[in-house]
Amino acid sequence: MSDLPKSVRIHDEGPREGFQIEPKAISTAEKVQLIEALAETGLKQIDALALVNPKRVPGWADADEVARLIRKRPGVRYTGLWLNMKGLERAATLPVDIVGVIRLTASETFCIRNTNRNIAQTMDEQRQWLAFYRQHNIPLEWGYIMTSFGCNYEGLIAPEKVVSMVGDILGLADEFGFPLKGVVFADTVGMGTPLSVQRLIGMVRSKWPELQIGTHLHDTRGTGMANAAAALGLGASQFDTTVGGLGGCPFAASKGAAGNICTEDFVYMCEEMGISTGVDLPKLIECAKMAEAIVGHPLPGKVMKAGIRPRTTIG
Amino acid sequence: MSDLPKSVRIHDEGPREGFQIEPKAISTAEKVQLIEALAETGLKQIDALALVNPKRVPGWADADEVARLIRKRPGVRYTGLWLNMKGLERAATLPVDIVGVIRLTASETFCIRNTNRNIAQTMDEQRQWLAFYRQHNIPLEWGYIMTSFGCNYEGLIAPEKVVSMVGDILGLADEFGFPLKGVVFADTVGMGTPLSVQRLIGMVRSKWPELQIGTHLHDTRGTGMANAAAALGLGASQFDTTVGGLGGCPFAASKGAAGNICTEDFVYMCEEMGISTGVDLPKLIECAKMAEAIVGHPLPGKVMKAGIRPRTTIG
Repeated sequence: MSDLPKSVRIHDEGPREGFQIEPKAISTAEKVQLIEALAETGLKQIDALALVNPKRVPGWADADEVARLIRKRPGVRYTGLWLNMKGLERAATLPVDIVGVIRLTASETFCIRNTNRNIAQTMDEQRQWLAFYRQHNIPLEWGYIMTSFGCNYEGLIAPEKVVSMVGDILGLADEFGFPLKGVVFADTVGMGTPLSVQRLIGMVRSKWPELQIGTHLHDTRGTGMANAAAALGLGASQFDTTVGGLGGCPFAASKGAAGNICTEDFVYMCEEMGISTGVDLPKLIECAKMAEAIVGHPLPGKVMKAGIRPRTTIG
Repeated sequence: MSDLPKSVRIHDEGPREGFQIEPKAISTAEKVQLIEALAETGLKQIDALALVNPKRVPGWADADEVARLIRKRPGVRYTGLWLNMKGLERAATLPVDIVGVIRLTASETFCIRNTNRNIAQTMDEQRQWLAFYRQHNIPLEWGYIMTSFGCNYEGLIAPEKVVSMVGDILGLADEFGFPLKGVVFADTVGMGTPLSVQRLIGMVRSKWPELQIGTHLHDTRGTGMANAAAALGLGASQFDTTVGGLGGCPFAASKGAAGNICTEDFVYMCEEMGISTGVDLPKLIECAKMAEAIVGHPLPGKVMKAGIRPRTTIG
């Protein structure tokens, strides 16, 4: 815990991650209701919807409608996920916030199965995105690396491969004259451990100390919060999480694919360690309960069940 | 992760912790079945039953019968929990392994509500236990400190108070001429964070570097595995866990009282970090599924749902 940040930025990806995988059909109104409630908690960025092929992700067939219906709260960014140029162009037609990102996948096999493109083709696709950002005056912010710790097809991914991919991302940014804010390591199928998180972030920080570090951690094998704590201990300051622990990746080919780490549990842990999140935890717990009511089954979040600890002084 | 141990000892407390809280009546045969299956996984100690007042914990009214029915596997210790002299004397009449422990509670309020004795009275009770150990040639092993990080009545507990209590435990051991193997910090109601775990263990290690460190962590607010990882990073080598994440504390006065960290998730995390557990993970996952079938509702364990990762080489 040598280098804990003073504050963190939390992106709630609950609506986007959660509603793409639920077996039950979630109504457009319910999606909008949760997104609007999340925006009242102090969260500054909500990944609200997925702009992907409705044949592959029927849960997001109504993404355009959701984007148009959300009553926007000033100061909050409402983003959508896209995985190809078609999705990015679709995003540009909608009232959502386009955050400039580069998305690569460390596992070639996962990349091909998830996007129908290999890594080299994905690099070329990213150049189209970057040209689009340049053309539309969208600043580049983050480089995302999916399957940064492993995938179901290739097993563990060597940290050297991911470090090399950070170099690729910086190269791509440079080609288009963009500075890069930082990199987000996604443990897409939950194969990281506190030790592998620490190793990878340590290697990246020693090579590029100016880069900010983020994580996107699925809790597939119970290590999510431990991995997040390890990342915090090395100064990571941006975290993708999902309210209630909603979600899972429909492409992960893993029957136990779990959601991201739970937003309110992560907020609780941060605040208890003196790390400011800017989030109103009781309001967020109400959102988690709302999410549970919407999906109609128990969510894995713990703080929503136990409540926050009594606010007595240390005795 | 500067001081990870090469190996850890894991005590599965699933039967004892789990079956004391389940609303459904669990048959004696089912309890024995799970205990015997756990003993086949490589676990060397199983907290099999609770020798407590059946009026307060009706789930363990059949503890004596369970103790007598288990077919014991050589090299495995089968322990029972007692909270007072009566329970210890009962344990001595049964075919269970009596592991000499001192049990104190850092929160005076919790101590009174949980055991009807304050801390000073508990110290006197411990002297009776120690005299009993001396008389029956039972070596003292561990000092347990319940509510080491906080409790629902008093909120957070200052680490200085817990460090002072470690001193009390060493004093008690010394009164009876016993060496002490180590101390186990119990986060009875899940109020610890990786930072508070690190602070407390750091303080104890710098004062008594020869003491071994253990933890007993309830995952009430989602920080359990992160806390365990923090303890591992400071060399902690003994962990109480429950298969499938069974259990919860019926005295915790918290509606969301959760079980301990999940044995198979913890085994997975350790082995993935190169820490040997001696446990056969696939066999343990079968035990978690058995536990889930016995209690008749989903358990929080993750690895039992996702499975272990593919055993491919790092690529």
